[in-house]
Amino acid sequence: MPRYRLTVEYDGSGYCGFQAQASLPTVQGTLERAILAFSGEAVRIAAAGRTDTGVHATAQTVHVDLARDWPERTVMNAMNAHMIHEPVAVLDCRTVSDDWHARFSATGRGYLYRILNRPAPPALDRKRVWHVKQPLDAEAMDRAAQALVGLHDFTTFRDVNCQSASPLKTLDVARVERVDEEVHLVFAARSFLHRQVRSMTGTLAQVGLGRWSVEAVAAALEARDRAACGPVAPAEGLYLDRVDYEAKA
Amino acid sequence: MPRYRLTVEYDGSGYCGFQAQASLPTVQGTLERAILAFSGEAVRIAAAGRTDTGVHATAQTVHVDLARDWPERTVMNAMNAHMIHEPVAVLDCRTVSDDWHARFSATGRGYLYRILNRPAPPALDRKRVWHVKQPLDAEAMDRAAQALVGLHDFTTFRDVNCQSASPLKTLDVARVERVDEEVHLVFAARSFLHRQVRSMTGTLAQVGLGRWSVEAVAAALEARDRAACGPVAPAEGLYLDRVDYEAKA
Repeated sequence: MPRYRLTVEYDGSGYCGFQAQASLPTVQGTLERAILAFSGEAVRIAAAGRTDTGVHATAQTVHVDLARDWPERTVMNAMNAHMIHEPVAVLDCRTVSDDWHARFSATGRGYLYRILNRPAPPALDRKRVWHVKQPLDAEAMDRAAQALVGLHDFTTFRDVNCQSASPLKTLDVARVERVDEEVHLVFAARSFLHRQVRSMTGTLAQVGLGRWSVEAVAAALEARDRAACGPVAPAEGLYLDRVDYEAKA
Repeated sequence: MPRYRLTVEYDGSGYCGFQAQASLPTVQGTLERAILAFSGEAVRIAAAGRTDTGVHATAQTVHVDLARDWPERTVMNAMNAHMIHEPVAVLDCRTVSDDWHARFSATGRGYLYRILNRPAPPALDRKRVWHVKQPLDAEAMDRAAQALVGLHDFTTFRDVNCQSASPLKTLDVARVERVDEEVHLVFAARSFLHRQVRSMTGTLAQVGLGRWSVEAVAAALEARDRAACGPVAPAEGLYLDRVDYEAKA
């Protein structure tokens, strides 16, 4: 029974998140219907990250076991053909060993958060960026972000409904940079708490707006209190854009 | 009676082109409704270029005369507020002199054509790029494009319904370059014939696919025959991204 690893891109704006839910449009449901349509197999897929409603991905990673041994390219092309009217695409398909798991084998995840920082709202990137009208100081945001890097108790930046057993996480990368009219926030870690990226982004935006000092972000982290978090940034600017695995997979 | 110059961005995929048509959704109709909604004035606007159905713009330029003397920023913000559910945004608003005209004062226009060149279809950029699966040789396309630069009879690259009095145009820039998974075609001229950019792009794509030689493009131009044109590229990859005016405007 071959196991296939799929790299998946999607526009999350029309979906109630990644995870399958009966009678609601989800990315997982869309992928599983495409598999059923071409192979006749009703399967469950596993994913590296369960993105929330409205969150996008340029490189979500999932795996699926199929009874029949299809060529990799056939799986990819057949799924894409069945999703042609959906904003979901399989970018890559590879067979992997039976003990490889899209979620549990992942050694790192990377997110990009895009803020459109100009007076006018987005026309071409509606629902794909967070629109902030007031000028953001990206350099101050970047300085403040460095306080978040490392092993910390991220209770402040964790959704109250977060299912994770521990609030301790190691944030490997937090970088903020201006790219033309946008401000990009890049985060990387082995794994993240629920809403951690949007909580950190919303808080750093307060620094960018001059409402919080750079030091206030470190103090918020230290507080280990959800109430110390800034306003959570909206889903629409967030992209899961990298999942890392050990090379041997 | 102040005249306002507006820079406009739009996603053309949901519109039947720029130009107003009774009972059809158009970009012009959307802009004019927004002006009516905030000012109470039923006006006609003039635009630098009438983009076709499905064609986008990052910097379309229009002008409008209003009876009342509104601050520039008020015009922009009020229009954007009334278009919040539409993929159209006013990026900039400036008062200009009465003899300044969005179309007739323009001294140059620039277009970008985006081809997504990978096996998988677009998910995030659906209807915003032309998807070409087979690898394109962007360097060969760029070499072939140079034959189009200069003053030529562009009959081959002109739609049969083109209203222009003459097929003679001077193409100032034709450049093809690979940008990650995309191939970008950049064209600039004082003005273009109807469907000229999509006709040139579709023809150059034949070179990129190895079906046409570099020299075949020059021969097609020489033929001055619409039948010599390659397949016309679809609207979805095309962006009006620049309109130039004399500095004194």
